[in-house]
Amino acid sequence: MSDPLRLGVVGLGRAFMLMLPTFAQHPLVRLTAASDPREEARRQFEADFSTPASAARSYETPEALCADPGVDVVYIASPHQFHVEHVRLAARAGKHILVEKPMALALADCRAMIQAARENGVHLLVGHSHSFDAPYLRATELIRSGEYGRPRMILAANFTDFLYRPRRPEELDTSQGGGVVFSQAAHQVDVVRLLAGSRISTVRAVTARLDPARPTEGAYQAFLTFSDGASAMLTYSGYGRYDTDEQLGWLGELGQKRDPSQYGSARRALAKIATPEEEAALKNKRAYGISTGGAGPFPVPAGHNHFGHVVVSCDKADLRPTAEGVHIYADERNWLDRLPVPVVPRSEVVDELYAAVRNGVPPLHSGEWGMATLEACLAILDSAASGREIDLGGSPAGV
Amino acid sequence: MSDPLRLGVVGLGRAFMLMLPTFAQHPLVRLTAASDPREEARRQFEADFSTPASAARSYETPEALCADPGVDVVYIASPHQFHVEHVRLAARAGKHILVEKPMALALADCRAMIQAARENGVHLLVGHSHSFDAPYLRATELIRSGEYGRPRMILAANFTDFLYRPRRPEELDTSQGGGVVFSQAAHQVDVVRLLAGSRISTVRAVTARLDPARPTEGAYQAFLTFSDGASAMLTYSGYGRYDTDEQLGWLGELGQKRDPSQYGSARRALAKIATPEEEAALKNKRAYGISTGGAGPFPVPAGHNHFGHVVVSCDKADLRPTAEGVHIYADERNWLDRLPVPVVPRSEVVDELYAAVRNGVPPLHSGEWGMATLEACLAILDSAASGREIDLGGSPAGV
Ligand SMILES: NC(=O)c1ccc[n+]([C@@H]2O[C@H](COP(=O)([O-])OP(=O)(O)OC[C@H]3O[C@@H](n4cnc5c(N)ncnc54)[C@H](O)[C@@H]3O)[C@@H](O)[C@H]2O)c1
Ligand SMILES: NC(=O)c1ccc[n+]([C@@H]2O[C@H](COP(=O)([O-])OP(=O)(O)OC[C@H]3O[C@@H](n4cnc5c(N)ncnc54)[C@H](O)[C@@H]3O)[C@@H](O)[C@H]2O)c1
Repeated sequence: MSDPLRLGVVGLGRAFMLMLPTFAQHPLVRLTAASDPREEARRQFEADFSTPASAARSYETPEALCADPGVDVVYIASPHQFHVEHVRLAARAGKHILVEKPMALALADCRAMIQAARENGVHLLVGHSHSFDAPYLRATELIRSGEYGRPRMILAANFTDFLYRPRRPEELDTSQGGGVVFSQAAHQVDVVRLLAGSRISTVRAVTARLDPARPTEGAYQAFLTFSDGASAMLTYSGYGRYDTDEQLGWLGELGQKRDPSQYGSARRALAKIATPEEEAALKNKRAYGISTGGAGPFPVPAGHNHFGHVVVSCDKADLRPTAEGVHIYADERNWLDRLPVPVVPRSEVVDELYAAVRNGVPPLHSGEWGMATLEACLAILDSAASGREIDLGGSPAGV
Repeated sequence: MSDPLRLGVVGLGRAFMLMLPTFAQHPLVRLTAASDPREEARRQFEADFSTPASAARSYETPEALCADPGVDVVYIASPHQFHVEHVRLAARAGKHILVEKPMALALADCRAMIQAARENGVHLLVGHSHSFDAPYLRATELIRSGEYGRPRMILAANFTDFLYRPRRPEELDTSQGGGVVFSQAAHQVDVVRLLAGSRISTVRAVTARLDPARPTEGAYQAFLTFSDGASAMLTYSGYGRYDTDEQLGWLGELGQKRDPSQYGSARRALAKIATPEEEAALKNKRAYGISTGGAGPFPVPAGHNHFGHVVVSCDKADLRPTAEGVHIYADERNWLDRLPVPVVPRSEVVDELYAAVRNGVPPLHSGEWGMATLEACLAILDSAASGREIDLGGSPAGV
């Protein structure tokens, strides 16, 4: 007998929008309650998720949400800087926790979050991150099978228009967690760590700020080495120019069909905006609310979620996770190990959460896992600032 | 009035085969003489390039070739380890020199070569290297125009079957100049240096040896930083699995049409070979000789020579040199700056050589240039061995 997780959401913004098709359709979870300062979003949530059997509740504050006895798990999708506070609240209230990436902005905060969860006997998972995506999980399974030997070199490149999507002011200020290292390396490092399967030893990186009107990192290159001798090259650009989805059959990050004739649209839309307030308002239009809300039906994705072009060179084959599966390049032949198009996108997030909470299966994307990824992201910023390689070999964050 | 360079060739092997369509068809050069220990190749050369007006000469030794007063320029395409000796011979004989990449195996040898050329008042060029390819030269021109701002991040990835092409034994022994760092990083570093346009400051790299039967580096990843703050990520694999030509419309390194259904053919052909001697003999079949020789006609290439997938992120655009030209991804739109399909492939090599020798134009691909590329290649090996970043900031090799 399945016993769906009763989910309370903190922050009905863009991240929630992206998880909504998952939470609304996955049989092992039920959207029960939410908190957001925006009244519009709260009203919409109640309207969308109340059923004849039970009314969906909404609250102005996370405190009030956490006091709701009908909530088993809190999904924290508030802005980065609130993650630590909201995790503490939820843990103290005895709720299991799924907190969005990046886990936090400082390692001390990660430690506090891990400790709060431990002290209160609740599970703490970090995600969604793209390392939950089925193609990376499948590639990892193939790697762990040993059939293709060890992973030796990983190439990861993602070119998007991230920096020109509408933002809150703090998303353009690195000191407040802005920029592509906090928001996007959190995915790319996570993916690469999963595939590599061993601890990061060193990080060398360069970041770039190419647009004075968006004064935060919009691009980076990072070279990681791992404790078993493997290495990974990460390149990310959010400047809306070359687009790696071209290498993925024009299937986008969410598995959706992309239209290459829409080139430059993010930049063009933003050019019509005059002030940071207008921009934040534009962002909220893409958040959950009257204009976007709804409990479905949701479009069926064309492919899997992914995070750009990735090639893992193993001893005996190159593996290339794509939006369609894992392309395997062995010595004699190459083929696509096709993964069926998902009915519920990002279902892996709920699967892992459910397994942890209901069956006690230790989650891959634990607090320790999220902390190690943040540590690498901070090392990217450190290395770029200092011009030196950062040694994480003896770090307590570990894998 | 053009006054074609009278070219003497040292080494009628695979490299010569690749330059043959250029030398045989370019109006500013004439194949005049050659030396090779293989008699078959010498006979073929005389047969192919003698004209009613003058007999093509062939010699058993480079010494004899260099004594030929009818030779203006010596093209040295002997195995790596002979480059230093053959350059010295040619310089002392007062011949201008085009020496194949890698320039040599040690920096001291490069210095000796540069000095020999200087003392004897001859020009010394290093090439062909893929940084001569028109798409990279065009991208560099676009960058230097300033229209797109400075280059900030370069991504270069090349996945080939290099390691499974037939080899001489020393090509599989790093201590004798074998492996992909000496032979292929020599191209990739050259391309990236050209595009970056400033000095390399640091090199961090990992190499991989995945096949005990081919006990040399078959793959590497290298992270370069430049004196102006730019960076570059180089990934190379010669293991014949994933193939970056897929990203180049299945046009190969020489601009030729590739057939993806031939997957694994290099490995399969090699698997039929039992001994290193047989393998060397197989290599010689692809060298110049009775089976391959001929002064044309040569197939018209489908596109330009290239060295894999390259993206240069500049302040105001991403530039992607391909086999067809340079794809420009600007803020509003993206387009292919198409370069006409070359009539004579690699003609840029002769153009630069001719300009130097006949018109005194300082060559881009000078001895100093080739030495700086070798320095970076040696740093890749050093960094991989030591696990440390190599600082080239204060190096005398310079740009
Ligand atoms: N995994 C992914 O694919 C993904 C995608 C987008 C965002 N995210 C992450 O989700 C988080 C939120 O980012 P976003 O883009 O959704 O931002 P957003 O601005 O769209 O949404 C934030 C929401 O939180 C609400 N909020 C603000 N303060 C709050 C508070 N104190 N309590 C409760 N709600 C509060 C806002 O009103 C808004 O609705 C970030 O950490 C981000 O990195 C993850
Ligand atoms: N730029 C390119 O695209 C390219 C391609 C292939 C090779 N190369 C370079 O060319 C050089 C030769 O490599 P290759 O693959 O052609 O090797 P190869 O073995 O095919 O050819 C070498 C030739 O030199 C001859 N030779 C050997 N010793 C000699 C000597 N002492 N004097 C004169 N000739 C001698 C051999 O008989 C043979 O014909 C290497 O440095 C390699 O890096 C460059």
